[in-house]
Amino acid sequence: MTPPVTGAALGGTPAFPQLLGRGRPWLPSRARIEAALDGIIERHWYTNHGPLAQELEQRLQAMLGVRHAVCVVNGTIGLVMAAEALGLRGKVLLPATARQAAVDSLAWTGLQPVFADANPDTLLTDRGHMQAAAEQAGSGLCAMLATRPWGLHGDTAGPIALASEHAIPVWFDSSDALGSIGLDESRPGRAGACEVFSLGPGRMVTATEGGCIVTDDDELAARLRNIRSSYGAGHPVKVVRTANGRMSEFQAAVALLSLDDLPANQAHLSTLLAAYRGALAGIPGIQMRPGAAHATSGVSAIISVDEAELGLSRDDLIRCMAVENIAAGPLLQAGAWSELAGAAHIAASCIRLPVGRAMTVDDACRVGETVRRIAHAAPALRVRA
Amino acid sequence: MTPPVTGAALGGTPAFPQLLGRGRPWLPSRARIEAALDGIIERHWYTNHGPLAQELEQRLQAMLGVRHAVCVVNGTIGLVMAAEALGLRGKVLLPATARQAAVDSLAWTGLQPVFADANPDTLLTDRGHMQAAAEQAGSGLCAMLATRPWGLHGDTAGPIALASEHAIPVWFDSSDALGSIGLDESRPGRAGACEVFSLGPGRMVTATEGGCIVTDDDELAARLRNIRSSYGAGHPVKVVRTANGRMSEFQAAVALLSLDDLPANQAHLSTLLAAYRGALAGIPGIQMRPGAAHATSGVSAIISVDEAELGLSRDDLIRCMAVENIAAGPLLQAGAWSELAGAAHIAASCIRLPVGRAMTVDDACRVGETVRRIAHAAPALRVRA
Repeated sequence: MTPPVTGAALGGTPAFPQLLGRGRPWLPSRARIEAALDGIIERHWYTNHGPLAQELEQRLQAMLGVRHAVCVVNGTIGLVMAAEALGLRGKVLLPATARQAAVDSLAWTGLQPVFADANPDTLLTDRGHMQAAAEQAGSGLCAMLATRPWGLHGDTAGPIALASEHAIPVWFDSSDALGSIGLDESRPGRAGACEVFSLGPGRMVTATEGGCIVTDDDELAARLRNIRSSYGAGHPVKVVRTANGRMSEFQAAVALLSLDDLPANQAHLSTLLAAYRGALAGIPGIQMRPGAAHATSGVSAIISVDEAELGLSRDDLIRCMAVENIAAGPLLQAGAWSELAGAAHIAASCIRLPVGRAMTVDDACRVGETVRRIAHAAPALRVRA
Repeated sequence: MTPPVTGAALGGTPAFPQLLGRGRPWLPSRARIEAALDGIIERHWYTNHGPLAQELEQRLQAMLGVRHAVCVVNGTIGLVMAAEALGLRGKVLLPATARQAAVDSLAWTGLQPVFADANPDTLLTDRGHMQAAAEQAGSGLCAMLATRPWGLHGDTAGPIALASEHAIPVWFDSSDALGSIGLDESRPGRAGACEVFSLGPGRMVTATEGGCIVTDDDELAARLRNIRSSYGAGHPVKVVRTANGRMSEFQAAVALLSLDDLPANQAHLSTLLAAYRGALAGIPGIQMRPGAAHATSGVSAIISVDEAELGLSRDDLIRCMAVENIAAGPLLQAGAWSELAGAAHIAASCIRLPVGRAMTVDDACRVGETVRRIAHAAPALRVRA
């Protein structure tokens, strides 16, 4: 039973009348945001470590079981502040799949990146990859920046043990991972010297823009608060340079509401991923990644494309989906590490499919159905391309 | 006629029942902020160079007569981005009265500060101070960072001419100066390679937090937009490292409303400064700074204290005012440049008095009256101290 080819990619009506957005926000409802804003305006306290920013820090501390949560204006600044507060000098090992903000946080603090490869099956950088990169780095390795790419994580203990062997600190870019559970059942928040979460757009716990650095280290927390310029939050300590990393009350208000929504949003994401899995099953050349156990780990639905099997390149599939009003995109941009085969394969083959609060199971099924139609029509589409 | 000493500083009732805040905000009304938020929620577009951020940039460009306004999440990041985009290496000359964010922006971009003194009468750094510091700096001087401290400015042409003589670029930290008019009738926005405005708390044009870099240089603007990570705003150019400098739609909405209020707020500030001037006239050891011509230049009312004449130290006066519920504070914190006599004198003698939209002329008069009472009671207060 070949489904009829009726999609816009072949000249018909698009699968979706309006763009089904990539990274559709997991934002709280309008009424609740408005109610929170009322309180802010009443207090006339818009920024500078206000009551909602303080409440958010306390709530994250309790939720993650960590002594210090330092909320910041965005995750990128959080990563820069973490690298700065650690006071490092030299080469830092990190996965090639690390996001640009993590790489740039090293550049802002005078550190040199050394990239480790990743496994295209799990999308993760294993301990073996890190070890190989450490050996290639030679001397001058001063730290490791581990990551939880796209909220996925499987072996938190690995990088910590490796760093310990090299007698260097390790910290975590957990940008996409707040509230996630790893393949190893670990929950982010207490690994390494500190973890940096993003509360940016597209994240399940979002402050529209925002970030948070969490740590059990009192001294590191004090340095972070002083670098942030926190107007008296935490005790004053000497730091080399400060940044304005303050989170506004509006950001904190949205994040607090977003935390309330986390269980419901995680449940909703699970249904979307299940629907995608069902709808995409058996399409030659399309594979959903990673396993179902990751339902609450990621904020993306990820597929990989085998061009030979599908009969269409990954980029052509993205273009066809765009014509159908589905905002899909490459999972990973190629970087300075293009000689690393695993990461390069991920960059060349993976697609990020839309998820979000506003998306329904029917939407996910229709996306899957559309991909199936495009796959069936691949020979005809190739002729037209 | 000695006014009766009845204030809280001597055990009576405080001059103000509630704290009269320092840097009270010039924020738009609640109803207007709520209306603007409605639109943002309707569009579901909270960040990433949204329609309000674009409108704000266009409006600032038109208002300042400048080709590019690059709005950013806060002024500190704006300063870092400006220093980064200029691509400098070496020593940078700047006034000792520059705010910490300006000094730190040099630290983040690997530049060494060289401080120039300031004139305690005008609070400004003259061309002569800059020239003296340039001579002391010796070799390696790569640029000048001119400032408009507390929104004051008197000789914009001076630093530009000096930089030209030294064949180095100059840029401006105009943090407090948006909408101001200098003693030389200049309006900030088109001086040097670029100017950086803050739209932070306390500023007359405020985004709660926020900033803006303005320039006529197309290439510099493109670099700034790429460093900001602007999601397609401006043409892509190669930059060394990026930051998340994006301004949210909520920030842009508040700033747009705040621009609407600028003429009314400037007029209100003029009445407050006039009231302060009248109420503080003739108090021995208290002098209002600078001249009345600066009504629209600054966002602070500034007085200086002559301890010998007043019979009370500057810090004791601040403490007495605190007891009266007046949040006054030092204008300038002492810095690494403490050997510079003029700046040190400003740091030791000047006080910032509260101003703001919520303050009335009567409030300003009562502050002045309270200072007069404290001055008259100085001998008695010294005994109790």
